[in-house]
Amino acid sequence: MITVSHDPCQPQSESPEKLRTEPESECRTVTDAFSKCRLPQDEEAILSSSLYPYYLPVEERPGQGEVTIGGRRVLMAGSNDYLALSDDPRVKAAAADALLRLGAGNSGSRILNGTLALHQSLEEELAEFFGHEAAMVVTTGYQASLTLAPLFGPNDVLLADQHVHASLLDAAHAGQARLRRYRHNDMTHLARLLETVEPDQGAIVLTEGMFSVGGDLCDLPGVAKLAAPYGARIVVDTAHDAGLLGPDGRGAAEHHGLQSAVDVQTITFSKCFGTLGGAVAGPRHVIDFLRHRARAALFSASLPASCTAAARAALDIIRTEPERRQTVLAAAERLRSGLVALGFAIAPGGTPTVSFVVGDVVLCCRFWAELLEEGVLANVMLPPSVPGRKAHLRVSVTAAHTTAQVDRLLNAIATVAGRVGPIACQIV
Amino acid sequence: MITVSHDPCQPQSESPEKLRTEPESECRTVTDAFSKCRLPQDEEAILSSSLYPYYLPVEERPGQGEVTIGGRRVLMAGSNDYLALSDDPRVKAAAADALLRLGAGNSGSRILNGTLALHQSLEEELAEFFGHEAAMVVTTGYQASLTLAPLFGPNDVLLADQHVHASLLDAAHAGQARLRRYRHNDMTHLARLLETVEPDQGAIVLTEGMFSVGGDLCDLPGVAKLAAPYGARIVVDTAHDAGLLGPDGRGAAEHHGLQSAVDVQTITFSKCFGTLGGAVAGPRHVIDFLRHRARAALFSASLPASCTAAARAALDIIRTEPERRQTVLAAAERLRSGLVALGFAIAPGGTPTVSFVVGDVVLCCRFWAELLEEGVLANVMLPPSVPGRKAHLRVSVTAAHTTAQVDRLLNAIATVAGRVGPIACQIV
Repeated sequence: MITVSHDPCQPQSESPEKLRTEPESECRTVTDAFSKCRLPQDEEAILSSSLYPYYLPVEERPGQGEVTIGGRRVLMAGSNDYLALSDDPRVKAAAADALLRLGAGNSGSRILNGTLALHQSLEEELAEFFGHEAAMVVTTGYQASLTLAPLFGPNDVLLADQHVHASLLDAAHAGQARLRRYRHNDMTHLARLLETVEPDQGAIVLTEGMFSVGGDLCDLPGVAKLAAPYGARIVVDTAHDAGLLGPDGRGAAEHHGLQSAVDVQTITFSKCFGTLGGAVAGPRHVIDFLRHRARAALFSASLPASCTAAARAALDIIRTEPERRQTVLAAAERLRSGLVALGFAIAPGGTPTVSFVVGDVVLCCRFWAELLEEGVLANVMLPPSVPGRKAHLRVSVTAAHTTAQVDRLLNAIATVAGRVGPIACQIV
Repeated sequence: MITVSHDPCQPQSESPEKLRTEPESECRTVTDAFSKCRLPQDEEAILSSSLYPYYLPVEERPGQGEVTIGGRRVLMAGSNDYLALSDDPRVKAAAADALLRLGAGNSGSRILNGTLALHQSLEEELAEFFGHEAAMVVTTGYQASLTLAPLFGPNDVLLADQHVHASLLDAAHAGQARLRRYRHNDMTHLARLLETVEPDQGAIVLTEGMFSVGGDLCDLPGVAKLAAPYGARIVVDTAHDAGLLGPDGRGAAEHHGLQSAVDVQTITFSKCFGTLGGAVAGPRHVIDFLRHRARAALFSASLPASCTAAARAALDIIRTEPERRQTVLAAAERLRSGLVALGFAIAPGGTPTVSFVVGDVVLCCRFWAELLEEGVLANVMLPPSVPGRKAHLRVSVTAAHTTAQVDRLLNAIATVAGRVGPIACQIV
């Protein structure tokens, strides 16, 4: 083992300061700060059982819509890669080219030394496509949400749908806005909450275009109608619908013909764009403000060239190949009608993500494990993310799934439901 | 333009609910929540001037230690790519191979469906290398810091060095710990703060191994000596020193011979590892707890295969090529002694990042702009990140920089200092 030949740093342990500050011998022990690091017993029990539904490692991608787990090929029914672009040869080629040309990382934040011309091109393309003055590319979808924190100030009332993503609540907490939640898509409740905003407060309605929890759409016409007379701003997380919905793939707002009602939108590249990263788009002065104030953007390394180039290639495909949307939405329709025919209660909508309540945690984990046994990887949503006995399963299809694969998924669900016994019949 | 053939979602705008909730005509306008989106006048002035030092787009990487900006080749003296691994052919090849094999993204979170066998291999290798029971790979270094939030609970007193990174303060805020800052590396102050912790509170000392602000090292021997009698936990962000310092590259703790004193450490892959991502390493029960509670890990898409494979390749090089550390530390030594000879006041230490106070914002931006004119890209640190008249410049060298390039950097600084006039002579 070779050691560094010159000591780069002055040893500091001999300093007289150290001796002066040596603690008195009578100083008392405090509570161990790590004693909190225990999971509740029931969670611990699942964790060590064969029903543990988390962190399952994917080994390979052996074919369209499939992954290898434990050496076995299984149907991937838990991905958000709706347009199947993460494995598209053009997306991968663009990413590989940028990687070889610009390196495996940028080793710096956007603001200081990590901005690429590629980032700026993508920003211009996103702003134009989604109909905003400006956009800012950040490193993850999670960080795209956090980037909103400076908009959610202590003087603002943030009216958030009960189903909005955890990352948006983290942004609300970081920004110190007054957070008020309205019942999921309940316009009566939102109207009541809007009435409570004082004239000297700001008001922002925060929602998702397509909700990740149940795969249903936001009542954006309702939100727009309620917000307008107050001058309340509308911020929409379009993680799941950007690229997927609307005649041209511009998202749920385009589907509703309401693109101009959305003041600011967040986008993620880890769903329809098939890679990693995210963006915030809106009026230029707002984006300029966030560029200089959003800690999740200022204090993070920038998005690697490979992911940035992948997102650009994906946007190009989203623009030019509407048939991919048709394929996945047709698969979604087949999945949804199949589930309804099997007697499952699902939220309305035609999106590729569908959730159904199974019941308690153990039942839900058993359902998940038996599905895997049948060769299908699904997702579980367990407490504390959802209420106690509303543990549910979420399945999704992508443009890569064939009709035969969707039917295989439905058959597996029917088989397992028959074995596991009666499940709760509630909508998520 | 082709449109989707079947409408995926029920239109909801006609529902009678909507009519009932229509706002009364007398409802009053609230304050515009976006009216806060203005930067102070002096900042705005810089923003629109030729001295604006941010978001400069890199177009190409034309050669070792250089980038192309505005069609011009300039010396990159602002990167944290200390070991120059982001452009290493082996790192890029590993990344490209994983990209082509596993796709441009994982389209899901680690916990649900985005874990790769590659992530787990990297976790085992990191835990072993840094001497911890377990490690958890997350998507960015920023999110590695946020992942600590569940450790920083409301019952904990978090004693943080004044120079710790913004992301760690965000984690403290998210976790709702009682944050107490001690003066930078001031053990007397830390000792006083430790005395104030009550026996029924937890205590965590939070520091960096090598500080990004000034490039100096933490007095880890001092911290360890003070924390031990209280049973206070020590959490170290090793973003800048992991891979760089210590005989075997294990970081500042190894340099001090104090690896076992560090309870939990965060690592980032956007410095010495040359890519994107991060990790948290520590006792197995702590990492298991964070895997199930850290929102920044649970609610984010996972690290793409390309970055994960790049980090593994980088770790392998860190393990086997100590000469890279010697190269960059020798360049650092040359830079540091050159700056001292020029009369600059710099914090002690032998690390590749060096800061010097220039004075006020305009002077600092002028210094930066003239350096760029001389063909050198540096970083500025301006208020509000630093105190009012302590605006400073930060330069860094990497293993890619030749002796001639370090001298070119020093000459450029000397030339600009001569033109810009007397600068403040304080240590950051």
